[in-house]
Amino acid sequence: MDHTQLFENIVAKRSFLCVGLDSELDKIPSFLLKTEDPIFEFNKRIIDETRKFAVAYKPNVAFYECYGAKGWKSLELTVRYIKENYPELFVIADAKRGDIGNTSKMYAKAFLENMPFDAITVAPYMGEDSVTPFLSYENKWVVLLALTSNKGADNFQYHNEDGIKLFERVLSISQKWGNINNLMYVVGATRAEMLKDIRKLVPDHFLLVPGIGAQGGSLEEVVKYGLNSKCGLLVNSSRGIIFADNSEQFDIIAGEKAHETQQEMEKYLHMHKLI
Amino acid sequence: MDHTQLFENIVAKRSFLCVGLDSELDKIPSFLLKTEDPIFEFNKRIIDETRKFAVAYKPNVAFYECYGAKGWKSLELTVRYIKENYPELFVIADAKRGDIGNTSKMYAKAFLENMPFDAITVAPYMGEDSVTPFLSYENKWVVLLALTSNKGADNFQYHNEDGIKLFERVLSISQKWGNINNLMYVVGATRAEMLKDIRKLVPDHFLLVPGIGAQGGSLEEVVKYGLNSKCGLLVNSSRGIIFADNSEQFDIIAGEKAHETQQEMEKYLHMHKLI
Repeated sequence: MDHTQLFENIVAKRSFLCVGLDSELDKIPSFLLKTEDPIFEFNKRIIDETRKFAVAYKPNVAFYECYGAKGWKSLELTVRYIKENYPELFVIADAKRGDIGNTSKMYAKAFLENMPFDAITVAPYMGEDSVTPFLSYENKWVVLLALTSNKGADNFQYHNEDGIKLFERVLSISQKWGNINNLMYVVGATRAEMLKDIRKLVPDHFLLVPGIGAQGGSLEEVVKYGLNSKCGLLVNSSRGIIFADNSEQFDIIAGEKAHETQQEMEKYLHMHKLI
Repeated sequence: MDHTQLFENIVAKRSFLCVGLDSELDKIPSFLLKTEDPIFEFNKRIIDETRKFAVAYKPNVAFYECYGAKGWKSLELTVRYIKENYPELFVIADAKRGDIGNTSKMYAKAFLENMPFDAITVAPYMGEDSVTPFLSYENKWVVLLALTSNKGADNFQYHNEDGIKLFERVLSISQKWGNINNLMYVVGATRAEMLKDIRKLVPDHFLLVPGIGAQGGSLEEVVKYGLNSKCGLLVNSSRGIIFADNSEQFDIIAGEKAHETQQEMEKYLHMHKLI
């Protein structure tokens, strides 16, 4: 999927919602625990009911990895289920990998070749040769951490050399490694006011924005400072949608929550004449 | 395991060698491919023959993850095999994880609770709340990336605010999160000359030093600038030991290579009156 197709999907769905699949076993409805693979069962039902309102899904790999080989099986089944049934959906492995070149190559193989993810989140600390192996796959994307939504972002991401903060340096330098068709950035919704300056550095790239909902970010603010002429935003919501309810109707309620968010997004897309 | 025990093991073994288990299927002896789990079989034989000369093992998680659920099984079997048979060995998951708090907590659970790793490598970009969940386990360690051995280290790790480079800031700030019994740092052997200044910031912490051998770092230089009064070094070698030979005698040859490295290390430990 390239930049143009992603925008076309946003226009078609009237949504730039990414649903985060942080599918923690302790939080999924208890009646699902009797099934053979409760996490996959949960995801499948969430996806079926929310997919009309979302353009992207983002399984958070930690929530699968913590169940070992069995969790990896659930992750594999989830991404395959999405791409086989709804190939237009953009699926991001939220894995935050990054290592020396020959190791990043193996991580890239794991997520972009052996599993059909469209994208993977990558940590920038180790620099160019830790990121470029992920960029060598056609129609696949790196989502590079720039300014994250958590409190700890203050520790290092604002480290300032001659007026250039570390996250700004990440945005500037990394643009040479990829392009708007294979590289996007994580910018936390809790830092929405920073989006104004970030858009000066990366006017055309897509931004993946976590932190709406449980983490306290505001969609209105994100849109105000982050929207560009091709939308340029994927806004993630995880817990607020997938754990909205834990009865047997959890999937229907999740669908309703996703629909609400989609309607709000549609309003903004209209307002900015993108649909 | 704490700082004192780790030093005692170094003295007993007369070695501060960490063997990196970057056990790539394409590189292991072909006769092993007929076994049910070639990667685990390879690791087991490597461990049995090298363990007398090493104090630590470091499976590189990417090389397991790229085989999906099956690879995770090999990883689990490997760490359990080591801790059940040779509990004195320190086992590091080279995973370079790090995410917002509730997600790092799940990664910590995966490696430090569900698998019996003693330590995990963590990337510092997301700051305090991305690291501290890994520090909440008794007798378990975080190995935090400071200055890595790859070329890309130049992109961001030297970003300089008022004379303080980013990796120095990582070293300074993170010391408040842990202590010498649960926190060590990655410093690449290819940057050995930097160890002199690094030791001023972290005189007592252990350093995990990759980059000896295939990556070109020198053990002599690392010892010269990095050794402290409790050794304070775990020096990793991966490909130079585990892939030294690919005949049916691969494990014996790996043992000989590990022995050679141990003898060199013993010489330095003597020279500095640590044994």
